[in-house]
Order: sequence, then C-alpha cells, then structure tokens
Amino acid sequence: MSTGFIVLRGGLSLDATERRAERGDILIDGTEIRDCGPCGMAVPDGAIERDVSGSIVIPGLVNAHTHGHGSLGKGRGDLWSLELLLNAGPWISAGRSHEDKYLATMLTAADMIRRGATAVYDLTWEQPRPSVEGMHQVARAYDTIGMRALIAPMMADLSFYDIVPGLADSLPDDLRRTVDGWRLDPFGASLEACREVLATWPFDTDRLRFGIAPTIPMHCTDDFLAACARLSDEFQCPVHTHMAESKLQALNGQLTYGKSLTAHFDDMGLLTDRFTAAHGVWLDPDDMRRMADRGASVAHCPASNMRLGSGLAQIRELCDASVNVGLGSDGSNSSDNQNMFEATRLAAYVSRVLTHDINRWVASAEALEMATIGGARAMGFERLIGRIAPGYKADLAFLDLHDLAYVPLNDAFNQLAYADDGSSVSDVMIDGRFVYENHCFTTIDLDALIADTERAMERLNRDTADRKEIVAALEPHVADHCICFSSRPHHVASICDKHG
Amino acid sequence: MSTGFIVLRGGLSLDATERRAERGDILIDGTEIRDCGPCGMAVPDGAIERDVSGSIVIPGLVNAHTHGHGSLGKGRGDLWSLELLLNAGPWISAGRSHEDKYLATMLTAADMIRRGATAVYDLTWEQPRPSVEGMHQVARAYDTIGMRALIAPMMADLSFYDIVPGLADSLPDDLRRTVDGWRLDPFGASLEACREVLATWPFDTDRLRFGIAPTIPMHCTDDFLAACARLSDEFQCPVHTHMAESKLQALNGQLTYGKSLTAHFDDMGLLTDRFTAAHGVWLDPDDMRRMADRGASVAHCPASNMRLGSGLAQIRELCDASVNVGLGSDGSNSSDNQNMFEATRLAAYVSRVLTHDINRWVASAEALEMATIGGARAMGFERLIGRIAPGYKADLAFLDLHDLAYVPLNDAFNQLAYADDGSSVSDVMIDGRFVYENHCFTTIDLDALIADTERAMERLNRDTADRKEIVAALEPHVADHCICFSSRPHHVASICDKHG
Repeated sequence: MSTGFIVLRGGLSLDATERRAERGDILIDGTEIRDCGPCGMAVPDGAIERDVSGSIVIPGLVNAHTHGHGSLGKGRGDLWSLELLLNAGPWISAGRSHEDKYLATMLTAADMIRRGATAVYDLTWEQPRPSVEGMHQVARAYDTIGMRALIAPMMADLSFYDIVPGLADSLPDDLRRTVDGWRLDPFGASLEACREVLATWPFDTDRLRFGIAPTIPMHCTDDFLAACARLSDEFQCPVHTHMAESKLQALNGQLTYGKSLTAHFDDMGLLTDRFTAAHGVWLDPDDMRRMADRGASVAHCPASNMRLGSGLAQIRELCDASVNVGLGSDGSNSSDNQNMFEATRLAAYVSRVLTHDINRWVASAEALEMATIGGARAMGFERLIGRIAPGYKADLAFLDLHDLAYVPLNDAFNQLAYADDGSSVSDVMIDGRFVYENHCFTTIDLDALIADTERAMERLNRDTADRKEIVAALEPHVADHCICFSSRPHHVASICDKHG
Repeated sequence: MSTGFIVLRGGLSLDATERRAERGDILIDGTEIRDCGPCGMAVPDGAIERDVSGSIVIPGLVNAHTHGHGSLGKGRGDLWSLELLLNAGPWISAGRSHEDKYLATMLTAADMIRRGATAVYDLTWEQPRPSVEGMHQVARAYDTIGMRALIAPMMADLSFYDIVPGLADSLPDDLRRTVDGWRLDPFGASLEACREVLATWPFDTDRLRFGIAPTIPMHCTDDFLAACARLSDEFQCPVHTHMAESKLQALNGQLTYGKSLTAHFDDMGLLTDRFTAAHGVWLDPDDMRRMADRGASVAHCPASNMRLGSGLAQIRELCDASVNVGLGSDGSNSSDNQNMFEATRLAAYVSRVLTHDINRWVASAEALEMATIGGARAMGFERLIGRIAPGYKADLAFLDLHDLAYVPLNDAFNQLAYADDGSSVSDVMIDGRFVYENHCFTTIDLDALIADTERAMERLNRDTADRKEIVAALEPHVADHCICFSSRPHHVASICDKHG
C-alpha cells in the first residue's frame, strides 16, 4: 500500500551553503521533503525505500534565465555578438504556430532536466505579442514534462533598428525599408494579454507562475515601462529584463537617458525585490548598490556572455554589494545548450579571469549555491526550492558516483563544478516524482519529440527562408555599425580589449 | 571472411578545414582510411558494412596537452592558482607505485576516449625522476586501451621553492626547512633514463612515441636545458614545456634571464619544429614571431587557464603570426576533466573575452581544426591523424545525432562547439578498431578500473596524509607571496585586472 512516503537511502547529499557532503537518508512525503538524517533513519510504515548510495544527491538546479523558445534556433550563428543575434531575431523565431511554441519549450525543458535542472525562469517569446493561448501552451509543456517554471513573455514596443543610434540610417535603402516594416505595435495589447493571463492563471502556482519581461530597457518606451511597473504592483508578479548585457546597451542607455539603464529602471519603479536583471555585465558600483537597496537579483549567464562576446559580469562585486545572484544558461539560440553544470563551472571560471587575487574568486560551492538557492530567490521560490531540507519541495538530481568525473572522489563540490559535464545525472525528481529515471524521461517520449522537431523545422526552414536572406544581407552592416559604436569608452570594463 | 575492410555508410562527416559537413561513406583498410566518397560507394568484397547514418563522424580529437598521472588528483584544490597547484605537487602526486602510474594513465585515457579523443600528448610525472619501467607502464596503459600517445616525462632540477624569488625566505623556519628537504636531484640520471627509453623504445611508433619535457623553463638549470636540446637533436624527439603559463612565470623569466622565457628557450636551442609550448598565456609579439620562425606549436589549454586564473592566451595573435595551435585539456589535477569538447568550446569563447571585434574571434570550425589538425601537428603526427581523408589513420569519433545537442540540426560545427558537452560520443575508433562502442569500452573493464582506483586511493590517501598537512600549512604563505609578486606590471595583459 502506497502511503506517499519515499525514503532515499544512503546518498551523498550536498549542502552548498554549509559546504557539507554527507551520506544520509531523505524522507519525502508527497511533494515535500519531510526529514533528512543519518543513514538508517526510521520511516513510516509503507514508505517506498530506494537505495541511492551510488549517487550524489543535490538540490535540483535552478536555471534563473533562459528562453524556452530558443531551442529551435540552436547553433544558428557563429561569430554573432548580441547585436547580431538580435538582428537575426526576425528570422530565427519567426513563423511559430502554438504547437511550435509547445514543442520548443518541451525541447528546452528536456535539455534542462537531463542535466539536473528542476526549475526555470523562462523568458519566452511570441510574435507579434504574447497571447493567452501561447502562454498556456508554454505552461502546458512544463506541466507535461513535470518541471517547475516561472514564465515571463518578452515584450518590446521599439525594434532593435529603432534604438541603436544611426543604425537604420547606415543601411542601404532597400534594407532600411525592410527594417522600417518591422516596426513593433504599441504595447497596450501585449499588456492586456498579460493582465488576462495573470487574472485567469489556471495552473498550480507552487509549480507554474507567470511574470512579465519588458525585454531590454531601450526596447521599451517609458510609457510601456511605467505600465509594466503598475501591472507588476497590481499582481505582485515578477519582472525580468536583460540589463546592461552588452557594452552597446550600456553606452546607449547613458546616451539616451543621461544615466545608467539600472538608474532608469529604478526611476521607472521597476527595481523591486520581484525584479531580476539578466546578465548585468556592464553594471557599475552605483548600479550594484541600487540593485541591493531594492532587493533585486541578477541572473548571471557566463556561457552566453562569453559566446556572444558581451563580457564578464563582476559577480564578486555584486555579492559584496549584497545583490542576490542566480545562474542561467540563457537560451539555446545564444549559448546553445541548457547545461547548468556548465553555468556553474563558468561562474567559477570567469571570476578568475578578472583578477589574480584568489581571495576574490568564486569557489565551487559558492557557484553551486548560485545555481540553486540564488536562482530560487531570483524566482521568488525561496524556502520552497534550492536546498535539501525539511519543508522544501522534493526537487532533486542524482549524480552517478561511477561517472568518471567522480573517480576518484576527492572533493564532491570541486568535481561537480569542475569535472562533471552534467552527463552524470541519472535521475531527476521534481515535486516528489521521478521525471527522469536511469537516463530516460518518464513523462515524455523523447524519440517522438525529436521526430516532431524535425518535422517542424522542415516547415519553419521553408517558411522563413526569405527572412534568413534578409538577415544575412543586414548582418555586415549591423556588425560594422555596432563594433564601431561599441568602441567608445565606458567606465566599466568587462572585456580585456587591451592586447596587441 | 574478413578482409580487413570496414565501410562506414552514410555518416555526416565534418571537415573543419573546409567547413564542410556532408553525408558519405568511409572505407577503412586495416588501420587506415582508404577512401571517402558519396553514399553508396563501391567497396571490396567481404568488407564489413556499418550503418552510421545516425551519427556525425569527426576525426578523433587530439589532446595536445595533458598529464595522464593527474587523474588521481582530480578536484583536489578549489581556489588554487598555478602556483598553489605546484605547491601541492609534493602531496597530490606522491607515493605512486608503478601500478599506480599505469592506473592513473588508464583513467585519464578512458576519460579522453569517452569524449572522443583518440590521441594525446601526455606530460607524465615520476618522482623522483623518470624511469624506463615507469615510462613503459604509461605506454602500456595507452597500448592496452588502444589510444595513440606521445609520452614525455616532466623533469626539473630546481624546485618551485627554489625559483620564486623571496618565497623560501618568506616561510616560517620549520616550513622553510621542509621545502629545503624537497631539493631535486641533478638532471643527469633523468636524462640518462630518457636516453635509454628512446634508444630501446619497444612500441609501434605509429601508435606510441616518446619525447621529453623540461617541465617549466625556470625549473631547469641552463645546463639541463642544453642537455635536453642535445638529446632531442640526437633522437629527433619532441620537446614540450609549460611556457609563460602564469604572470608570475613571465615576470620571473624576465627578472632571471633579462629576456622572455621564449627568448631564453630559443637561445638554448630548444625552439624547433619539434617543440610545443603549453599554455603560452603571457607570450608577447616577439615571442610569437620566434615561435613562428622556428615552426614551433602552442598547446592552448583554455579550461586550465581559467580554472587556475592564469589568464587568457591570445590565440588570434598566435594564428596571425603563423604559429600552429593545438588544444589541450591539461591534467585532471588542474582542470579536472579530459573533455576536448570543453576545450573546443572554450577556445572559441575566450577569444570573445579579448575583443569586441567579431572579426578577431575564433569560429567553431576553427576551434575544431585546432582540436584535430592543430594537435596532430604539435605532436608530429601531421598527415597521419586529424582529418578524414585517404591515407590518414582510421581514428574517428561518432556523435549521436539524436543527442539533444543536435536537435534540431541547424549547423553541425556550431552545435559541436557550443551545444555538445561530449556525451554525444557513442563510438570511438582508433587505428581502425572500435575501442569504445555504444558508450562502452571494448578494451578495458571500466568497473574494474574504478574499483582499482578506489583501492589505490585508500592507500595513497593514507600514505600521503602528512604531505597533505604540510601543503596546507604552506598554502597561505605561498598564496600571499605569489599574489604580491604577480601584482607587478607586465607588458602582456591576459587578465582583466581593472575593475572596481
């Protein structure tokens, strides 16, 4: 007779905050952890026993910043800066049906789960604007695979070509006319859709939540930002934006607002404890203090920042300023995978490119803390996920101790952060349920998902071929203009631009 | 009846040099590739047919710099600079029996093969000096698992504590006495052993070769370096060293020699086309030109350089100077895994931290070229391995197209470099033989290897406990001294040291 109790026996549990690796038992009652204790713990009659002594047990990793829709754009570009990725946006995310949105999200979710992530902050995208049905499709993907998610649609009322000074004017006439035709709608309808989604959200809010994402400060008019702040206040819903991701954005913010992007967001009432800034590569000390004052979080995405050449975020300085830091993979259309082990590794690594002083480096357990508790806080899921402790949700990942990353086992934290590529993840439990078991998904048919993806891509590649051509024609113009613009000085330095 | 012919049908073959991804057949005759062509190629009667249409087929990856003995020291340190790793050397590599050397090498080889590497430049280590039997044990490990290797023992006649100015004097008396006791022997016996190994090498030199590695310039007296040059000339054998890996080394070289480490090596007659410099983080334009003039190679180890905070090597500048560049994982006691996919990814990524200019970035196919042809050249295995072409050895890795890294398949090069963590590798062929098939080794018993490792570590941990304590006591002194020393200016900048 099932009682709803599961006891996990003898795993090597990690507590990143206390840097403790200890063998013990974990008792799960339904969706929650009831108790943790030494091996041989007494448990209620009828509890299902499971021997996990061959595993390291960690809290499920929390991906604090990705784009679920990005999976279909995986590997599209090579020598793409952020600006060239934005230039490609009208191609790589175009033409999606509601089914495609479900499919893309599912593919991203599967890629996350197989590498031990159990919760995600997903900045999704619908063209031309978010819809109730689209948002529900995204939520349904997470619901079906069984992953915890906070879904926030990216929104803008100014296009990339509108906001980079001089860019549109630098284009040949035909291309300028094309991008003029890509003008975005006013924001009213976008926010109306979000209001309806928030007011009628049909999903369990312990599992699935909804927020809003004015996508990049410059891409939203002040009226739009003010309306976002009001909506967030009304529903107490989370807000997420890409903040000072690239040098171009930081420079452009200063030029446009006469102050930093963060200062502008603060003045617009958007810097609250419900706010997460993705990237934050070009934040200065004043920005960091503002973020800390308001209780806001940063989602650090080191892989994406390196891939797109955006620079290296100064995470030690953010931590010193008491800003909460989570880690994100970013979307697969920028950094191509959803591997939170990679994000953890690179969070530690990039800190070591910024200074010789080992006392300022991010340690392995500290990076793991960001990948769990830091992300949980950024999502507003604090005290619900991110630790293995009584009262927390039973969101766990199990790492095979026989994976060569852990042979020999000298230090579990260092080996998780520096040796493991995430393929040691054999099982994943979310909300007390195994959604991934012995390297297989229990909730979805992976082969069918792959076949569906191939079919969808055939259609999308055909339907977006003309946009691909336009993007390719725009690319050299955008590249030249943005490299030139970004060469201006800025008082923050996150790129080593001083060799040769 | 077996004819020795194998035909691989329908795989998606990558050619990094020509950035070509095409489906086709590959005919293998014994250990070599006989022919490559379109699908449906005619083959000799009796050829074994194998359908690889579900795979990407790449040339086996070439790890141009690792330390086979390092596997047992995996994850030992966290906030360790190169200097703190060197400080820990007397602990983490101590007490090894010949069996341990075999075991450690095998573990490293297994970790490489499962991630698609088929050839390696292994800078191995024996205390107190290389021996014929020790070198043969290392070679036997590669011979048994079936991997191609160039084995070069690291040698020194000055200790870390001898060569860092002021370090020994900065230590408390008891610790200074301890490190004084760690003085190294004169080099004669080391080089005699190498001469004997070279003169009597019993292994097939298409598969296993031998070279020498005066480990770090400063750690070898000039007499020693001159003797290395003579030995290398006599046997035409490869030479490898850690060249300007950390800022401390570059500064120290200038201080000691009144010129750069590379210039000193050049003057000692060691810069030839048989020479590989590992790391080369702090090379200046003059060093690069010297390397190019002599036809020398660099083994770029981006993961290790980030992990140890050594800095970022300026690979675009090296390529511009026509220096051949290979990629290395470095040893598992510095960057903890043997994943050449990670090295490939980071080679592309770090180039993007050095400049905004996308035209100066390392592209995905270019990184793959370094991970194959570049490494082959550095090892002196050019025209033998590194490409899929007639006359080349049949060293191949097969990547599962159903791995989520390749779903959907938008661009095989970008996805290999940016999405794949290497766990897509399902099969590996070396010299025409499958040594890894369907994610399992065919030549070794992995479970037995893991059990042997656990047993060996129990003994080694017990036997080296006192050294662990000494290293821990030394650590804060070494850290303080080296951070202080490294804060002096140097005309090369490979760390972003300018925030705050």
